[in-house]
Amino acid sequence: MPELRKDPIVGRWVIISTERGRRPIDLPRPEPPLPRTAANCPFCPGAEDKTPHEVFADRTGGAWSLRVVPNKFPALKIEGQLDRQGEGLYDKMNGVGAHEVIIETPRHDLTLSDLDESLIERVLVAYRERILDLKKDTRFRYVMVFKNQGAAAGATLEHTHSQLIALPVVPVNVAEMMRGARHYFEYKERCIFCDIIKQEIADGRRVIYENAGFVVVAPFAPKQPFETWVLPKAHAATYEEADVHSYRLLANALRTALRKLNTALASPPYNFMLHTAPFTDRGAQHFHWHVEIMPTLTKVAGFEWGSGFYINPTPPEDAAAFLRDLET
Amino acid sequence: MPELRKDPIVGRWVIISTERGRRPIDLPRPEPPLPRTAANCPFCPGAEDKTPHEVFADRTGGAWSLRVVPNKFPALKIEGQLDRQGEGLYDKMNGVGAHEVIIETPRHDLTLSDLDESLIERVLVAYRERILDLKKDTRFRYVMVFKNQGAAAGATLEHTHSQLIALPVVPVNVAEMMRGARHYFEYKERCIFCDIIKQEIADGRRVIYENAGFVVVAPFAPKQPFETWVLPKAHAATYEEADVHSYRLLANALRTALRKLNTALASPPYNFMLHTAPFTDRGAQHFHWHVEIMPTLTKVAGFEWGSGFYINPTPPEDAAAFLRDLET
Repeated sequence: MPELRKDPIVGRWVIISTERGRRPIDLPRPEPPLPRTAANCPFCPGAEDKTPHEVFADRTGGAWSLRVVPNKFPALKIEGQLDRQGEGLYDKMNGVGAHEVIIETPRHDLTLSDLDESLIERVLVAYRERILDLKKDTRFRYVMVFKNQGAAAGATLEHTHSQLIALPVVPVNVAEMMRGARHYFEYKERCIFCDIIKQEIADGRRVIYENAGFVVVAPFAPKQPFETWVLPKAHAATYEEADVHSYRLLANALRTALRKLNTALASPPYNFMLHTAPFTDRGAQHFHWHVEIMPTLTKVAGFEWGSGFYINPTPPEDAAAFLRDLET
Repeated sequence: MPELRKDPIVGRWVIISTERGRRPIDLPRPEPPLPRTAANCPFCPGAEDKTPHEVFADRTGGAWSLRVVPNKFPALKIEGQLDRQGEGLYDKMNGVGAHEVIIETPRHDLTLSDLDESLIERVLVAYRERILDLKKDTRFRYVMVFKNQGAAAGATLEHTHSQLIALPVVPVNVAEMMRGARHYFEYKERCIFCDIIKQEIADGRRVIYENAGFVVVAPFAPKQPFETWVLPKAHAATYEEADVHSYRLLANALRTALRKLNTALASPPYNFMLHTAPFTDRGAQHFHWHVEIMPTLTKVAGFEWGSGFYINPTPPEDAAAFLRDLET
């Protein structure tokens, strides 16, 4: 059973794998190295028996266009109770959680941004369905949806996919974001994200793209060059309770953002992360769900590890101006 | 002038470079690629004119054994005032700070852990001297000392060196650590680090090495495999005010830790970070300076970026047992 352990100083949780039978220097490779062809790919049609039993699929039109399966090498295990306990001044609990893979398309030769808007919409709806289902499990407090595109961004299989991890605690980054947003709300009685959106649209220098429901911006204080946020214009704390029509507009905004980044930076490795309110903060007036896209262009080194400061060589105004003008 | 900008939600500062005259997609390489030989190395003896004018040197015995020079491509600029200002709901200030390089030895063919203890002690004393000097500048609130060893850990020059950055704000990671430690102290009236050291030495499973002044441990909740902390046994908030004899004992502990990691993991790329109290928290009863060593073995991917959670495949008890038994 993996273990969740809490750093007693900053309160950050880590997941410690406790698989035995290997030497500590044999760092595990949780999945086989990136297959370059479809021949041995467990996510391609015909290889459905190579994945754990699917928990969701879209078969609109017959064959599957999308499948969600448990991760074969999960960071957390779905069975068991949390069993919170102390160990002297430390805190730990069982590594209970869900770790699922969203296979975004049967096509091995495409990436997410190559798909039509209607197919990306189905991926976004699949995220929603899985969050709604996992929310029913009272052991969980948060679901983090994310994508690693490219080996340098942490992908271990080439076939395009995203992942989600359901957690029994609210992650520290989410808690800090909630705390900051709540602090602002207490002072101003306004959502900080709504204020940011208003200021960004009025200013325009960091706006990359806009449609009826979403705005794509380079944030004012980006950690990495070309960091890009996709924000819904209307206030909503949780992704999974968004208006059903909004997923199509999000598909359009996300696809446009990714295609612009691909053109600008020669299809860079990237991560994206869905930030939504914890289960207990549903309906929060101070939080506003959004997607953060982070191209993998620079390294995290000693200064960043130690300080939490980031050195970003690309002003977001320059990145936004460059991306804004690109065709998609 | 670089700019310091604050994320309005979580309060994290970033350094935005504002060099002009290049396209945003031309990500700067702040220093030339790693030279493989000493032939074109700006840190070798004879090339002293290729660095900015030295701010500190150790010439015990004649020729220099160590030099400290300003970084030729600094993240922050030493001249100017902070000029704090708002921009709508955002906050920014001029990127004022010091960015220095500690050239640890004239030898191009050695790394820090190859040096004799007495030479490592000189490096550690140089950190102290530079912090004491930079503390006199009232614009600064913190000095972060760190080392990037190997290209994968962010080093851009091969010749062994460490760096320091003096900052006009307390970095978010340091502030969080201070907050957590203060919270514990308010409740227990004991330093959390002193309590950790006591528990670790009594328990023994995560202890890697010990000498009269320092203990080397694998922390209970490490972010990365083989993360290693070097802690002074006696309580002290600030590195630069440590007892003058303690630098030799630290040299022994740090050298031993690095040599064990080199043997275990085939000289891995790594970062180390010196955590000391901010200038205003000098003499703090709740904080305890220490060094964190982080081998670069796994990637930061979407889950880590989004959640701040880390998935660590190596239990620290296993890493510690393995390292403890290695000869150095």
